[in-house]
Amino acid sequence: MNAEIISVGTELLLGQVVNTDAAIVARELSALGINLHYSSVVGDNPERLEQAVNMAIGRSDLLIMTGGLGPTEDDLTKETTAKCAGKKLMLHDESLRRIGSYFHEKPVSENQRKQAMLPEGCTVLQNNNGTAPGCLFESENGCKIIMLPGPPSELEPMFREAAVPLLKKENSGAIISHNIHVFGRGEAPVAQEMADLMDTANPTLAPYAKEGEMFLRVTAKAKSAEEADRLCQPLIDEITRRLGAYVYGVDAESLEKCVVGLLLRNGKKITTAESCTGGLLSKRITDAPGSSSVFEEGVVTYANEAKEKLLGVPHDILREYGAVSEPVARAMAEGALQKSGADIAIGITGIAGPDGGTPEKPVGLIYITLSDGKNTWTIKRNPIGRTKSREWHRHCAVSQALDMTRRYLQGLPVTE
Amino acid sequence: MNAEIISVGTELLLGQVVNTDAAIVARELSALGINLHYSSVVGDNPERLEQAVNMAIGRSDLLIMTGGLGPTEDDLTKETTAKCAGKKLMLHDESLRRIGSYFHEKPVSENQRKQAMLPEGCTVLQNNNGTAPGCLFESENGCKIIMLPGPPSELEPMFREAAVPLLKKENSGAIISHNIHVFGRGEAPVAQEMADLMDTANPTLAPYAKEGEMFLRVTAKAKSAEEADRLCQPLIDEITRRLGAYVYGVDAESLEKCVVGLLLRNGKKITTAESCTGGLLSKRITDAPGSSSVFEEGVVTYANEAKEKLLGVPHDILREYGAVSEPVARAMAEGALQKSGADIAIGITGIAGPDGGTPEKPVGLIYITLSDGKNTWTIKRNPIGRTKSREWHRHCAVSQALDMTRRYLQGLPVTE
Repeated sequence: MNAEIISVGTELLLGQVVNTDAAIVARELSALGINLHYSSVVGDNPERLEQAVNMAIGRSDLLIMTGGLGPTEDDLTKETTAKCAGKKLMLHDESLRRIGSYFHEKPVSENQRKQAMLPEGCTVLQNNNGTAPGCLFESENGCKIIMLPGPPSELEPMFREAAVPLLKKENSGAIISHNIHVFGRGEAPVAQEMADLMDTANPTLAPYAKEGEMFLRVTAKAKSAEEADRLCQPLIDEITRRLGAYVYGVDAESLEKCVVGLLLRNGKKITTAESCTGGLLSKRITDAPGSSSVFEEGVVTYANEAKEKLLGVPHDILREYGAVSEPVARAMAEGALQKSGADIAIGITGIAGPDGGTPEKPVGLIYITLSDGKNTWTIKRNPIGRTKSREWHRHCAVSQALDMTRRYLQGLPVTE
Repeated sequence: MNAEIISVGTELLLGQVVNTDAAIVARELSALGINLHYSSVVGDNPERLEQAVNMAIGRSDLLIMTGGLGPTEDDLTKETTAKCAGKKLMLHDESLRRIGSYFHEKPVSENQRKQAMLPEGCTVLQNNNGTAPGCLFESENGCKIIMLPGPPSELEPMFREAAVPLLKKENSGAIISHNIHVFGRGEAPVAQEMADLMDTANPTLAPYAKEGEMFLRVTAKAKSAEEADRLCQPLIDEITRRLGAYVYGVDAESLEKCVVGLLLRNGKKITTAESCTGGLLSKRITDAPGSSSVFEEGVVTYANEAKEKLLGVPHDILREYGAVSEPVARAMAEGALQKSGADIAIGITGIAGPDGGTPEKPVGLIYITLSDGKNTWTIKRNPIGRTKSREWHRHCAVSQALDMTRRYLQGLPVTE
């Protein structure tokens, strides 16, 4: 089955919104073993949309439309697609009732009523996170068409819970991907080291850069998911063997989930003392559900006085070395450990930019210390010849802190 | 000038990466007044890529290719595009030298050398944030082609700094958009209220939902940016008048930048006491450069003991009302204000999920208190009939806290 995605919305062509919908749908199709050959974006323009839908109906077995189901006048996906498919729109009573109960205190407006109009004979995909229902139907020439609402928080659960089970019935075979996540090595050198593994056709191997990390994707195609998994395994084993301590997980959702999992298994608690990262480390730790068992408190000490008051960083050290220095990062971690009673503490201090850099202490210079009360380890991040954003420096410093924690908990060298 | 984007990469069709590149390029093209008619994604497949490039060269004046310039074997954008355009690839010495100095301590590998191969006669777009250079050249039939590296942190500055000035010379006219940002009102009711303003052709008006907020986009087309701006202004004024205190800014980059700007202008300092949001509020405040003048410290008190110890929340209140309650949010804010010496404090406590909810205190129940020492205001967020993610609850609670601060600093009702 060959599929195609058309995402509708002028906001996408104006670059005001990033097309996460296409990525969500693509990922699910891939897991189903459905080949996605085309993914395109069309504005809120009836002629160009009609053209794109007609072309898709002509060449693909499955067309997935995202966006343009909303209540406003420029939402014209349903009208246009139904027309191309040779179907009328009809009022769907159950959807109208659901929309009414969603806005429980207010009457349903004419605009909102428009959302309950659906192609005749379609299977309705219920929206549990918003008002616009989705649907699945067939064009006169037999192309399956799925229409999904634009907001990702509505599209994702609807597609996964309502559309995927319907597609599973139609499709055989599976493409399975596994990602090997690496911290501390770049894409190019890793690719070179793995060059001999990249020639195979099934499974395939491809390297990717990802916000200061990299990962290798192993993909196999087979009749069943289990069989595809079996094809992937030897390659995953070989890569993991070669990269050793740099691999933080296979199909790991994130460094933070990996770290929280390790803390839980080791029965250890962590605390944070952040300056330039402003709470991003504690935010990422607490992104992981269940983090309340391993994280009780953290402080953001942006000002020097706060570092003294909340963490007991000695005034003299701050004066002698400056806030952005190894001794201060160390004193922050050690102070946080003592005040919190946790088993591990992280201290981060640095210059995230865009201002505040000097020749001796440039933007991007960040010290990260891990202390367990007996030992401390510090990594100095010192950007060379790159101008990166504040967001990038903060993100990477926090990732580095998480990776140090991961290595500590796994008994690996912390600062290598 | 009609433009087209082709983003190259199987990872996009597999949904492993979201196509932010297309959004970045689209936004810049829009600001230049260049119409973007097509944006599509092609996998790392030479035949299908060749087909797509040939079609684009045939129908568009400007083709922008993103991705596939990397050092690995599946990076085939340059080879394929040059072939379609009737150009050879040649070694670009200056780029090779730059790549060498980027990896200053190591010799340049064969893989990395591939990145310095560029179409003959092209204008090289220097990469200040990575190794792969971009380029601009013309196909034999006169279609301008720009090739840009895939990582957004490399693509964005290269396009803005090197390609946009070249495009500006070629193009006349401008499309200008202004966004009116609204917090506390939904997309559908606002659209209905503005229905009479949406019939005009120039400027146009369109409403969008955005992660617990909404915004209205006013877009005008004219010969110059100044003239387009003049066309937008009356509509912006009318919308701002109608929505009043719900508008937090026109072209505001974010609630946090708006709040930090107001704090700076008012000479006020803020502190934070967070439970379920885990540092996200202090992170978002410190996202704004210059926030160090208005934010000195914050605490994340995830555990009850931490709330008592770091904020002085009375044990009795925690026992009587539970951690997720109005009195605790209030005590957190008041405690933080006292301990920090700031002018305003925010306390947040709630249940972000996915676990930990009960019928009385469901997932999504979050209390947010603002205190200035004289008065406190609390908003209780209580989700009705929606299942949203942990990330969504945390994001929206922090946005609500920022909007309360914005309203407080603007002298508007804080909790309306």
